[in-house]
Amino acid sequence: MDRRNMLKLPLAAALMVGVSGGAVLAQGGEKKVIGISIPSATHGFMGGLNWHAQETIKRLNTTYPHIEFVLSTAGDASKQVNDIEDMIATRNIDALVVLPFESEPLTAPVKSVKEAGKWVTVVDRGLSEEGIEDLYVAGDNTAFGRVAGDYFKAHLKSGAKIVILRGIPTTLDNERVEAFEKAIDGSGIEILDKQHGNWNRDDAFKVMQDYLTKFPQIDAVWAADDDMALGVLEAISASKREKEMWVIGGAGMKEIVKRIMDKDPQLPVDVTYPPALISSAIEMTVLNFESDAPMSGRFIIGSRLITPENAAKFYFPDSPF
Amino acid sequence: MDRRNMLKLPLAAALMVGVSGGAVLAQGGEKKVIGISIPSATHGFMGGLNWHAQETIKRLNTTYPHIEFVLSTAGDASKQVNDIEDMIATRNIDALVVLPFESEPLTAPVKSVKEAGKWVTVVDRGLSEEGIEDLYVAGDNTAFGRVAGDYFKAHLKSGAKIVILRGIPTTLDNERVEAFEKAIDGSGIEILDKQHGNWNRDDAFKVMQDYLTKFPQIDAVWAADDDMALGVLEAISASKREKEMWVIGGAGMKEIVKRIMDKDPQLPVDVTYPPALISSAIEMTVLNFESDAPMSGRFIIGSRLITPENAAKFYFPDSPF
Repeated sequence: MDRRNMLKLPLAAALMVGVSGGAVLAQGGEKKVIGISIPSATHGFMGGLNWHAQETIKRLNTTYPHIEFVLSTAGDASKQVNDIEDMIATRNIDALVVLPFESEPLTAPVKSVKEAGKWVTVVDRGLSEEGIEDLYVAGDNTAFGRVAGDYFKAHLKSGAKIVILRGIPTTLDNERVEAFEKAIDGSGIEILDKQHGNWNRDDAFKVMQDYLTKFPQIDAVWAADDDMALGVLEAISASKREKEMWVIGGAGMKEIVKRIMDKDPQLPVDVTYPPALISSAIEMTVLNFESDAPMSGRFIIGSRLITPENAAKFYFPDSPF
Repeated sequence: MDRRNMLKLPLAAALMVGVSGGAVLAQGGEKKVIGISIPSATHGFMGGLNWHAQETIKRLNTTYPHIEFVLSTAGDASKQVNDIEDMIATRNIDALVVLPFESEPLTAPVKSVKEAGKWVTVVDRGLSEEGIEDLYVAGDNTAFGRVAGDYFKAHLKSGAKIVILRGIPTTLDNERVEAFEKAIDGSGIEILDKQHGNWNRDDAFKVMQDYLTKFPQIDAVWAADDDMALGVLEAISASKREKEMWVIGGAGMKEIVKRIMDKDPQLPVDVTYPPALISSAIEMTVLNFESDAPMSGRFIIGSRLITPENAAKFYFPDSPF
C-alpha cells in the first residue's frame, strides 16, 4: 500500500496549478512513415477529402518534421491495392491510413498490412471482416439520417409528400436511409420514391427529372448529399418548380453552406458529414506514434445540423468542396 | 463542373509523392487555455490516470507552447463542481476536459460550461443528459466484459464454478457484467456469486474472503479490475488456495502486466481499460484548436487481451499504475 500513499503527494501538489512552463521533455522525434491511400477526387466530397488530406500533411510536416507521409489516390480498387502493396514493398511504411474504394477487394490487402505488424487506420467505409484495423474513423451515418429526418418531421405536416435520393448501394447508405425513415416514423409524411443517385450530381439530376415528371406534388427532397442536391436543384430549376419544395443535402459543401448563410429558402439547412474526417484519421494515427495516448478503437464523428445561425462555423472558402 | 476538372490536376500530381519537406505553414499559435478536471488518485487506476494526464500536459507544453493547461483533481463531486466554476470564473478556459466524479451532480455545471460557448470533452463516465459534450472519450465497457468472458468460455469446461467481483454500482459496471455474462452464455460455467468490490483492493479482499468461506470449489475469479485482483489474490493466499483457481483483473496495472509477462499461472491474462484514456481526451481536445480535423463525436477505445506474448507492449514501468 506504500505505493499509493507516496502517489498522493505529487498529485496534491498539482492541484489547480497551471502547468504551462513546466518540465520540457524532448520530442520522440523517431522517423516514421505513414502511408495514406484514398480514392481520387471523383466527386465533390472526395475532392474536399483529398484537399483536407493534403492540408493535414502540411500541418503535420511542420509540427512533426520527422514524420514522413506517402499519399496515393486511386480511381479504382485494383489501383488502390497496388498503391498499398507499393507502400509496403518500396516505402516501408509504419502505418497505413486507408479509405477503401470498395470494402471487399481491399480487405485482404489491408489485412496483410496489419499482419506485417503495421498500424492500420480504416476510414469511412469498413472492411468486409471485423477486427482487422487498429483504429476506425467514420462519420455517424445513423445520426446523418436521423438529424435530417428530425428536420423533416419538425417542418412538414402530416400528408406532406417527399422524395429521397439514395447514394451508391452500400451498408453506409442503408444505415442513413433507415435512420431517416425511423426519424420521420409516425409523422404522416409520405415518401413517394427513393432511387439511387449514387452521390453523383448528374445521376441525381436524372433521378430528380424522373421524379418531377411522375409526381405532381413534392413538398421536400432529401437529397442526402450536397453533390446530389446540386443536381436536384438543377432539375427543379429546369421544371420551374423552385417555389414548391425545399431540398436538404448533406456533407457541408461550401456552396451549399454559403446559400444557407444567405438564407436561401430552397436550402434551409444542411447536415454535416465532413470530408475532413480524413484529417481526424491522419492526426490520430500520428498521435499513436508521438504520444502515449491510446488511439486504437472507434472514433465516430458526429453529424450536426447547419443552420443560418451557425453556418459560418462550417464555411471553409479555401476548400474546393 | 469546371471546379472539379481543375481539381484533378494537383491531385494527380500528388500521386505517390512523399510530401515530406513540402510547403511549411506557420503554426496557429493562438493562446488557448484547457481546463482538465479529474478525480484524485483514490485508487490505482485513478493514480495512473492522474500520472498520464500530467505526462500528456508535459508533452503538449513542448509541442504547442502557446496552449496552457489548468489541471485540478477532486476527491468528491462538490469539490469538482467548484474546480470547474473556478476555471470559468478565474482562468477563462476555452475548453474543459472532465472525468465526472459522479454523473448527476456534474451534469448541470458542465452543461453551463457548454452553454458559455466552451468546448467540452467528457471522459469515461457519461453525464446524466445526452448531447451536452462535443467529444466523448471512453473505454469500451462491453468489449471489456466480452473479452474477459470469451477467455473464461475458452478456458473452462462446462460445470466450472466462478465468482465475480463487481465495481461501484454504475451503468458502466452493468454494461461490463452483462457483456461478460452474455459471452459465457451456453458454456455451462456456473457463476456462484457476484458482489460489489467497488474497484477497491480492500473491499475486494473482504468480498473474496467471504467467497472463500462460502464456496468449497472455485475454478476461476473474474475480478474485473486490477486493484480488485490484488485484493482477491491476497485473500486466496491467506486461505492457501492459490493452486485451485486463476484470476482475471482488468485495466493494465504494471504489477499485473509484469506477472503476465513472467507467466504467473494465477494471472494468465489481463484485459485493457487504459488509464491513459485521459491522454486521448486531452490530445484530441488540443487538436480541435490546432488542426482542422473534426474532433467532435464519440471515441471508444478498444479493450484488448494482454497475454504473455504481447504483454511487453502494455508494460509501462514508469507509471505508478
